[in-house]
Amino acid sequence: MRTSPIRVTVWNEYRHERSHEAVAHLYPEGMHATIAAGFREDLGDEVQVRTATLDEPEHGLTDAVLSETDVLTWWGHAAHDEVRDDIVQRVQDRVLEGMGLLVLHSGHYSKIFRRLMGTECGLRWREAAEREILWCVNPGHPIADGLGECFELPHVEMYGEQFQIPAPDELIFISWFEGGEVFRSGCTWTRGKGKVFYFRPGHETFPLYHDQNVRRVLANGVRWAAPASSCPYMGGGRNICEPLAPIAAPHQVDGSMH
Amino acid sequence: MRTSPIRVTVWNEYRHERSHEAVAHLYPEGMHATIAAGFREDLGDEVQVRTATLDEPEHGLTDAVLSETDVLTWWGHAAHDEVRDDIVQRVQDRVLEGMGLLVLHSGHYSKIFRRLMGTECGLRWREAAEREILWCVNPGHPIADGLGECFELPHVEMYGEQFQIPAPDELIFISWFEGGEVFRSGCTWTRGKGKVFYFRPGHETFPLYHDQNVRRVLANGVRWAAPASSCPYMGGGRNICEPLAPIAAPHQVDGSMH
Amino acid sequence: MRTSPIRVTVWNEYRHERSHEAVAHLYPEGMHATIAAGFREDLGDEVQVRTATLDEPEHGLTDAVLSETDVLTWWGHAAHDEVRDDIVQRVQDRVLEGMGLLVLHSGHYSKIFRRLMGTECGLRWREAAEREILWCVNPGHPIADGLGECFELPHVEMYGEQFQIPAPDELIFISWFEGGEVFRSGCTWTRGKGKVFYFRPGHETFPLYHDQNVRRVLANGVRWAAPASSCPYMGGGRNICEPLAPIAAPHQVDGSMH
Amino acid sequence: MRTSPIRVTVWNEYRHERSHEAVAHLYPEGMHATIAAGFREDLGDEVQVRTATLDEPEHGLTDAVLSETDVLTWWGHAAHDEVRDDIVQRVQDRVLEGMGLLVLHSGHYSKIFRRLMGTECGLRWREAAEREILWCVNPGHPIADGLGECFELPHVEMYGEQFQIPAPDELIFISWFEGGEVFRSGCTWTRGKGKVFYFRPGHETFPLYHDQNVRRVLANGVRWAAPASSCPYMGGGRNICEPLAPIAAPHQVDGSMH
Repeated sequence: MRTSPIRVTVWNEYRHERSHEAVAHLYPEGMHATIAAGFREDLGDEVQVRTATLDEPEHGLTDAVLSETDVLTWWGHAAHDEVRDDIVQRVQDRVLEGMGLLVLHSGHYSKIFRRLMGTECGLRWREAAEREILWCVNPGHPIADGLGECFELPHVEMYGEQFQIPAPDELIFISWFEGGEVFRSGCTWTRGKGKVFYFRPGHETFPLYHDQNVRRVLANGVRWAAPASSCPYMGGGRNICEPLAPIAAPHQVDGSMH
Repeated sequence: MRTSPIRVTVWNEYRHERSHEAVAHLYPEGMHATIAAGFREDLGDEVQVRTATLDEPEHGLTDAVLSETDVLTWWGHAAHDEVRDDIVQRVQDRVLEGMGLLVLHSGHYSKIFRRLMGTECGLRWREAAEREILWCVNPGHPIADGLGECFELPHVEMYGEQFQIPAPDELIFISWFEGGEVFRSGCTWTRGKGKVFYFRPGHETFPLYHDQNVRRVLANGVRWAAPASSCPYMGGGRNICEPLAPIAAPHQVDGSMH
Repeated sequence: MRTSPIRVTVWNEYRHERSHEAVAHLYPEGMHATIAAGFREDLGDEVQVRTATLDEPEHGLTDAVLSETDVLTWWGHAAHDEVRDDIVQRVQDRVLEGMGLLVLHSGHYSKIFRRLMGTECGLRWREAAEREILWCVNPGHPIADGLGECFELPHVEMYGEQFQIPAPDELIFISWFEGGEVFRSGCTWTRGKGKVFYFRPGHETFPLYHDQNVRRVLANGVRWAAPASSCPYMGGGRNICEPLAPIAAPHQVDGSMH
Repeated sequence: MRTSPIRVTVWNEYRHERSHEAVAHLYPEGMHATIAAGFREDLGDEVQVRTATLDEPEHGLTDAVLSETDVLTWWGHAAHDEVRDDIVQRVQDRVLEGMGLLVLHSGHYSKIFRRLMGTECGLRWREAAEREILWCVNPGHPIADGLGECFELPHVEMYGEQFQIPAPDELIFISWFEGGEVFRSGCTWTRGKGKVFYFRPGHETFPLYHDQNVRRVLANGVRWAAPASSCPYMGGGRNICEPLAPIAAPHQVDGSMH
């Protein structure tokens, strides 16, 4: 049982908010500030929240920051390619060791998500202002806590199948779109000791991170993705010469082979 | 239903066989030759088999070869790092489009497998000559066809858990080792349209690719991994402006955001 | 590789067709006759097809019939309760031993499906004449062969989430409905050695079993669900006194405990 | 976040302890008393624990008891058949609504477990006093918290594959047995809103419920299986006449069909 706060780092590309007035209007201090404020309000003492953005040194994701992060949330869109490969590697390593990762909306195409999935993570999309209904198909899942059997978002950008991901370990939400598409909008995977949650809503030109249901899902996601086991992660190859039980046949190891 | 032969390419690092007499003794023309001969013998007209090795130009995996390959088998061990990244990318692209991939033994640490999994793919190992018993936990799976409830290999190198892979879509075999370890020895995943099968047995200093049960599993694996669907793979992002159903709200797209 | 035909038994409740003219008009000899004819036409020599219906002795599912059945398809709706429990048990036993089972449309509420799932298998439904679009989320799956990225049915009864099933082993189709719902319309599970495929479309008052895409899915389902492994099914408890490897500690068994 | 204690009911067949001195010696007040005491000691204020046994009225599982139970643990062995079917139904209904269920050792053959799984749940077994090593294959799972990469039990009854269960949603432990078998010893499933955890160790003639690692797993299991979502469970069929979005085509419902 966790007795100390979950340390959350909210990462944001933070470009649209500075270049497009419509986005700045919705998120004057950046989407990361809104998301972080939501966590502080909804989760209170359960969390300690900081933010980090692309244009900070090392994208704000230094070794020190990551080593003090229990759950990282990721929003990126137009500048995925500008994220440094060595920092992507650093984030991946931390996930495998146990850091939780929430990938938001257009983060589906981020380097870190694609690397953890092993697939292209492409999808159908349409920028209109259409209605979305998210149906919960896993009502007992902690990420569904506090929600109804479905919830609506009046105007969204559409994401549709095929969503090129590995079959999720758990499927929680499926979206219906006014224009005829469906989407696996809430999916989880485990990679190493780390839990990964992808959640679809969150376009920069709609006020989705102000929506109560979206906020609830993200807060639930933080709780769910926080490390919950001290069992050791044995990541790399390990040569264990001594068996736990006796081996009958003799054997000479040819060390030159390795 | 497939009416033409499955085109199999057996890939091998092919180094140990040329540098170590013990290996050359077991596999005088290379492991790939033995594996390929096994497929030809066990699958007959169902397959057309070729081989490719690390030291050939482009590792023998040109665009032409891959485009004519339905199932690729991969054995590597000491020279994973020498495989060119652009060719790993090429193989990954083909898997996502539907090519099957059989990853054999120490291929667990290959670039292509790690990239498709998104994890480190490390494991415990011990080079002794210990007994292995493989238990089938999914007897209805086509890869288990022709096998008993378990089968034995008298002298093997040990691979033990933790095997740092994503939870497999299907678990088929679990190995027991004389020295006290267990291992998920037969696992499948789907990536894009491609089917991936990892199979553990196959150390270079034991005659495992001559073993009837191992050969049977590999032959079954080829059949299982062969492309079986013409449904289109929609890999990349696709902007679909026209909805399939009418959208009520008007919306102006700001093209400068993308 | 299968060399003999797949023996298919198409089971139907066969009541609506005899009591309702609208249904009789679409399926004058019963839905089973239409489905069976589709299999014969689409799969030709690959299959031997027979039918069985509720009001035949033992519902047409004698031990002899089941022992000669590789794949059973199940359509029921209004008379689930009239299916005898001992025959449900018989069907379940055959599935566990390896017989494939295709559960169609309102068969979601059949005794056999609920028993194999362990859940209620309830869902939201609405009888209107609304549009359905089925999206394929697993394009490499053999059941998706021959289909496009989506296909439409112009007028259907709606089935919506929550669909109270265990998480499927594989999710193949997700449906969009005009009225705002979504549904996991193509799902697979393995039970024992048997493969189970649930497919949603098929209401008795719409000509869905005449639809080319629906027929294609069912034909693919038959191929996929046909037994594909001779590996033994070890169903019941088995006391194995003799270990495969030596056990060090002595032990006296107290036979009175069992 | 849970603010009230988890209400745990420890159910036990409680026959061996009264009829066999060797068992009574290990568990003088019954295994349920030992398991319950372990929960109280290990989980303290997090839980409120009661017990129930087969020979109590309604097996101690009245509607009142079940409605006040968040997590039920189940140990049975020789008297599975004596459990009343209506009470099995009652337990199943509660699981679907969200009650957690821990199935212990020989409980694999209980009516409730088989009903939730839809399979026979048989296995290989051998009563000897052999060594078991449990390997954790999912170190990030909350049920693995506090454990090492493996732990040992010196003398146990063996359970081996094939374990005739549906593929688990999560596989946490795999056991190695001295005599040559392996077993999926820690498995989870979701049924409705309820979480189900099967854990293998626990034979009545070995002091396994006094073992620190076994106790830790069970305590973790209680925390994991406790209800964690208020999202509604929509179990049965529901006719939803009013669509959420407009439907174009007119349709006349023939009510006589249902």
